[in-house]
Formats: sequence, C-alpha cells, structure tokens
Amino acid sequence: MEAPRRSERGSEEFSRVLAFSDGLFAIAMTLLVVGIAIPTLADGDDVGQLADALNDDLGSFVSFFVSFAVIGRYWVAHHGFFARLAAIDPALIGLNLIYLMFIAFLPFPTGLLGNYFENPLSIAVYAVAVAIVSGMEVVLFAHARRAGLLARAMPDDVYRWGRLLSLSPVIFFALSIPVAFVSTGVAVAVWFLVIPFQAVANRRKPDRADEFF
Amino acid sequence: MEAPRRSERGSEEFSRVLAFSDGLFAIAMTLLVVGIAIPTLADGDDVGQLADALNDDLGSFVSFFVSFAVIGRYWVAHHGFFARLAAIDPALIGLNLIYLMFIAFLPFPTGLLGNYFENPLSIAVYAVAVAIVSGMEVVLFAHARRAGLLARAMPDDVYRWGRLLSLSPVIFFALSIPVAFVSTGVAVAVWFLVIPFQAVANRRKPDRADEFF
Amino acid sequence: MEAPRRSERGSEEFSRVLAFSDGLFAIAMTLLVVGIAIPTLADGDDVGQLADALNDDLGSFVSFFVSFAVIGRYWVAHHGFFARLAAIDPALIGLNLIYLMFIAFLPFPTGLLGNYFENPLSIAVYAVAVAIVSGMEVVLFAHARRAGLLARAMPDDVYRWGRLLSLSPVIFFALSIPVAFVSTGVAVAVWFLVIPFQAVANRRKPDRADEFF
Amino acid sequence: MEAPRRSERGSEEFSRVLAFSDGLFAIAMTLLVVGIAIPTLADGDDVGQLADALNDDLGSFVSFFVSFAVIGRYWVAHHGFFARLAAIDPALIGLNLIYLMFIAFLPFPTGLLGNYFENPLSIAVYAVAVAIVSGMEVVLFAHARRAGLLARAMPDDVYRWGRLLSLSPVIFFALSIPVAFVSTGVAVAVWFLVIPFQAVANRRKPDRADEFF
Repeated sequence: MEAPRRSERGSEEFSRVLAFSDGLFAIAMTLLVVGIAIPTLADGDDVGQLADALNDDLGSFVSFFVSFAVIGRYWVAHHGFFARLAAIDPALIGLNLIYLMFIAFLPFPTGLLGNYFENPLSIAVYAVAVAIVSGMEVVLFAHARRAGLLARAMPDDVYRWGRLLSLSPVIFFALSIPVAFVSTGVAVAVWFLVIPFQAVANRRKPDRADEFF
Repeated sequence: MEAPRRSERGSEEFSRVLAFSDGLFAIAMTLLVVGIAIPTLADGDDVGQLADALNDDLGSFVSFFVSFAVIGRYWVAHHGFFARLAAIDPALIGLNLIYLMFIAFLPFPTGLLGNYFENPLSIAVYAVAVAIVSGMEVVLFAHARRAGLLARAMPDDVYRWGRLLSLSPVIFFALSIPVAFVSTGVAVAVWFLVIPFQAVANRRKPDRADEFF
Repeated sequence: MEAPRRSERGSEEFSRVLAFSDGLFAIAMTLLVVGIAIPTLADGDDVGQLADALNDDLGSFVSFFVSFAVIGRYWVAHHGFFARLAAIDPALIGLNLIYLMFIAFLPFPTGLLGNYFENPLSIAVYAVAVAIVSGMEVVLFAHARRAGLLARAMPDDVYRWGRLLSLSPVIFFALSIPVAFVSTGVAVAVWFLVIPFQAVANRRKPDRADEFF
Repeated sequence: MEAPRRSERGSEEFSRVLAFSDGLFAIAMTLLVVGIAIPTLADGDDVGQLADALNDDLGSFVSFFVSFAVIGRYWVAHHGFFARLAAIDPALIGLNLIYLMFIAFLPFPTGLLGNYFENPLSIAVYAVAVAIVSGMEVVLFAHARRAGLLARAMPDDVYRWGRLLSLSPVIFFALSIPVAFVSTGVAVAVWFLVIPFQAVANRRKPDRADEFF
C-alpha cells in the first residue's frame, strides 16, 4: 500500500499527518523529563544531601529546559509551515518523516548534554542533530514551493528571505562544532547568536513578506 | 518560519494547538507510572516479601494518584479556558508552550516526592513546580483577555473573580514551602486548603459569572 | 477556570475529551513494552544464552500481550460508549479522568505480573486494578444515562443488560483474588471465564438491545 | 459496551480509530530513542572516552534509524490504506488493534538488535516481528475488501498486485531467519532485497492500478 497522490487541506489524510506530527513532537518533548534521574540518597530525609544531589543534576535541568524550548520552537515553525500549505503529496510525507526522525532522536543528545555538559563531543553531537533538523526544515520548505503545495505562490525575494531564516540555525550550530573543542561555554554562546541574527533579519524583511509570514 | 498571525476557532491551526496540548498532557500523566519501580525480590513467589516491597513503594503510589489528579485538574482548566477562546495568536501559542513545559516537567518532582516524601526539599520543589503552572494559567488568561481572544468580553468583576480562582493554588503552594521545613505533613495539608478556599470563592461568584464559568 | 457546562457532539470540546482519552490509551498500551527488559548477556553473540534469557522473560511477553489485549478491549468499549453520547458534561469529564487514571496505572500491575507471575499478590493487584476499570465503566454508563447524555433514551431492560456485560469482569476479577492465594494458575483461568460468560449473555440480549449495541 | 456496527468516513468514530492509531505509531517511534543508553564515563570531560562509548553504541544508533524508517514505512502504508476506506466495522477495529499490538512491540526487538547485532537470534526475533506486521497488513486489506469497506470496488488483478506488494516483506523477512544462523550480515542484506523487489513490482503494475494506488 502506498500513500495517496495528493491530499487537499481539510481531508482526513491532511489532518492525519498533522495529528501524527503533533503526537511525535509532544512525546519527544515530554520524554526529555525521563533523562533527569531521581537521585539516590544515603539518608532520604536529609535536606543537605538532596540539595547537593539536585545541584549535581543541574546540567540535566538546563538541558531539559533548553531542549524543550528548542523542540517547542521547531513545533511552532512546523505549525506555521503547514498553515501555509494547501495540500500535501507523498514526497512531503516522506520528507516530514525524516524531519520527525531527527526530532524523535533529540532526547538522546539532550541526555548526553545533561550528563557531559563540559565534553566538547556532547556539544558537537547536539549541534549536529539540531543543524540537521533545521536543514530538513529548509528541504521541506523548498519541496513545498517547487511542488506547488503552498496556498499562495511566494515571490523569489520572500522565499529567499524565509529560507535564510531557517538556514541560520544550521550555520550557527555547524560553526559551534569546532569552537566546542576550544571552549564548550563559547560554543553554547554561538548557539544563542541565532536570536540576534534572526532579529536583524526580521528588520530586513522584504515588503511583501508581511503577507506570508 | 513563524506561526501565522491569528487563527480562528475551527481552523486547522486552532485545532493543532489543542491536539498538541492534549497529547502532551496525556503523556505527562501516563509517564507518572514509570516512576513506580517494580520491586526486586529475593524470592519472587513470596507473598510477604512482595507485600513489604509494595508497602515501601507506598509514597510512589500516593504521588502517582495525587499527581494524576493535579495534572488532570489542570487539563480540565485548560479545556475550559480554550473553550472560551474565539481565536489564538502567536503570543498565546508561546505562553501555552511555557505552560506545557512545566506540565511536562511535573513527573520529575512527582518522582522526587514518591521517593523522598519526608524530605522538606522534595515538598518545596513540588510546590514551586505546581505554583508556576498555576501562575502560567493566570498569565494565559490575562493575555487572552487583553488581546481580545475571548469569545465574549468579560466584565471586570467576573475577570477578577476568575483570576482569584486560578491564583489561589499559587498562594497556597507558595505558603507551603516554608511550612515544609517545619513539618512535611502540615505542608501537604496546606495544599489541600485550596479545595475549601475554592468552594468558598464559588459561593461568592459575581452574578454575571454564571454566563462565563 | 472550570469546564464548560455541557458540550454537544461535534464541538471542539467534545472532540478534545476523545483526543485526550485516545492519547492516554495509546501511551498506556505502548508503554507496556518498556516493561520487557533487554537481557544482559555474558557473551552477546551466543544464541543459547540469548534463548535462555528470552525464555526467562516469558512472563513479560505473556503480560505484554495479555495487557495490550485487556486495555485494547477497554478502548473498544470506550469508543463504543462515546459513540452513543449526544453530549458530555463536567461530571462525565471528571469520571472519565478517574477511569483513565486506572488505565494509566495498568502498566505497573502488568510489570508486576510479568516479573512475579507465580506470586498470588501480583495476581491480586492486577485483578483489583482491572476490576476498578470495569467498575468505572459501569459508573460512566450510569451517569450518562441519568444525566440524559445518551443520544437515544435506553429502555430499562436494555440498560440492565448492558450494565451486566460491563459488570461481569468486575465479578470475575474480584472472584479470582481469593483463588490466587490457592493457585495462581486457576486464578488466571477465572479471568478467562469472562469470555464464555459474555458469549452466553450475548445470546440473552433483549430484543430492542440490537438498536443500541 | 461494544463498538458500533459500522462507522462512515467523516464520523467521530472513524476519526477516533485514526487518532488512536496515529498516537500509537508516534509513541512507538519516539520510544525507540529510550533504547539508546547514555554512556557512563570514568572521566566525563574526556573526548576520547565519549567517542569510544558512542562507538560502542553504534548498533543502537543503526537500529534506531532503521526501526524508525521501518515503522515510518508502515505508518505511510496505514495512512494510504485508511485513505481508501469509506467506512470501518468492528472486525476491522479488532484487526487494527492486533496490527498495532505488533507495532507497539517493535521497540523490544529493536533494542535487542541494537545490543546484540551479531546474534542470529536477535535477527530472527526482529524478522518474525516485522513479518507479522506485514502479514497483518495483508489481513486488514483482505478484510476491508471482503466486507465492502473500500471506497471503490477494486478489480481482482489490482487487488492481487497490491496484496503481493504487502506480502513481499513477509517473504523476505521469513527467508532471512534461517540465513541469520549462517551469517547475520547476509540476513540483513536479504531484508533490503524488499526495495528492488517492490521497484520491479511497481513496473508490472496492472493498468487500472493507477486509479487505486
């Protein structure tokens, strides 16, 4: 059995792709909490021991909240992307599955980061995983435009601008990988450069982009 | 890619936010069971040993049922809140994600409580997490009103009354934190004061509140 | 915030209760697999060692498939029950949450049974959990009828017959508890008596029941 | 309570079966990541140690991505299958549950494969599980056709061709089982023969099949 050719917005088949994606996002985000281990204490009633144990878990808490925010940001983007589609085709379903495969994988690099925050390789594995997700976002966007799945045809300058916005995390996360082997702190700082970069890009929005984004 | 400006009730985008939220609630509530460890017995067929082991797990059972009830109560409130919205906007989607981040986090303080029920710090961590969730509920409510997302404009007295109802757990759970360092049992009792408080508040409902709640 | 008074079939609020319930059922059923531990082998490539380890896991496999079938059976019943409703009210939402609380709990007694299949207490805990779920099914059914939520008014004899069908697992699972302390094998056999009992009950269906079931 | 007789496409009952199935698929696929253990390092900051540990986990990564692709492929087929149905009946709901039982089971053989990639028995268990899922796909398809649930009556040659496509993984995975006891590498290669086989079968598509697939 294969997927049907093309399913218009409003059909059961269009909705199912969204329901499946939403379920997968929700699970990947909720599973992150499983990575925070309940500490084992010699004396369970001792406040000091539990405080120390929670302090040792600090990396796990940071990576839970950062990863929830990161995957949540992708969910918002996924939501915004599908809101602009008039239909889906089998290639989009396949590309969406590859995209979701890396979303589902994110709890692993998150757990790694939570345990080995100072290890350059944890930073590198995390950065590669995030860069691939952002890269797949660009691929989904490009396919939807080429295959005529967008509800409204997008002018070239608006498309290039939107693609740059999706590509910027790929660039910054890729850049952070060699940096991690010098300093893990600086590498994480490079990740956060995506925020001011996107703020600047938002100011240089093409005129007609307002109708699309 | 960004979220679309404003999505009316009935659109695929409005429904997706609900589907995603419901999925996350359902997973957070079901994951609670993972926190109850299957005991390891020297003699697997011995009734006495298993009874002792289950008795040692008592804290885990209590925290499973309490947390399921707590998160279930939030789900009912979330359900009631969205039932009153005519539309959602990107800010509401973002605030909803922050709210859900703390819902997804709840299995950790629940596990902590299950293992270290007598430890004041477990009680404090749990109380902080629940207070934040209730606080975010107030923030969501305030934003929806200010941004004109409610299906019907709400009079000031009705709004203040509804806000008090959502704020009351914040107050009681915050209050329980210092109490926990004196007696963990009394701190948990403070939590349950929310129930009679809300019962009294329900009697003092403004006249027109009936049309909204 | 509270749940809205009454939500008719077709409203977003009615659908959300189903979406949330379906999510919770799906997760509880899929989490069962987490209870099957991957064996640890001295020599990973040895077929005999892995065969022995899988043989030791036999109880886990049996309890996965039995529990999936049991929860799946409840999902079918839940599906059939909601298909007969014209509306939901806040009390039904609350009762449904209590029902789902025990569905979400089932992976724990299942894990217990998988590890300690010969222990009478495992059998008893499992039987209690299943009996409560079936009991809650009866409570949901009775409430829906009393509150006028059923799409079509149900005659007394048809209602009593439907209630008997839902009550029968409560009776057989409760009966199996004392039996378990004599023989765990016979206790499990008592569970399977539900199947012929319901087959006989199906033959004694009241005439008009055909229009409802 | 029992499932309603027959539910047409567009009814809440039809949608619920899809929502439940999508949730179960999404969870089974996301749970695969739990099978990849976070390594324990003597020195957490050491790149070489983490690299070695990740290298030892290689089997886990391969089985995560292969299994995600395998279950994803079944989700696409399930999606395509339900897109062709005009209605569902209780028997289809029951068969769908049995199908989903084996989908939910797949994380276990995947974990086995990830840990014991060289063990013929891991390969055999995985192959049996996948062959059963594909076999159930054929059973679902046959039932839908016999019970008149398909939206459009399918000619005999088109049906036989579609059945062959679904049966081919059963054959290749069954064939790989004896091969695994000679060489696990060759057994895995036999699995991938499904791809060229289906490509050849796609060239021999009956004329009218284009309207159905």
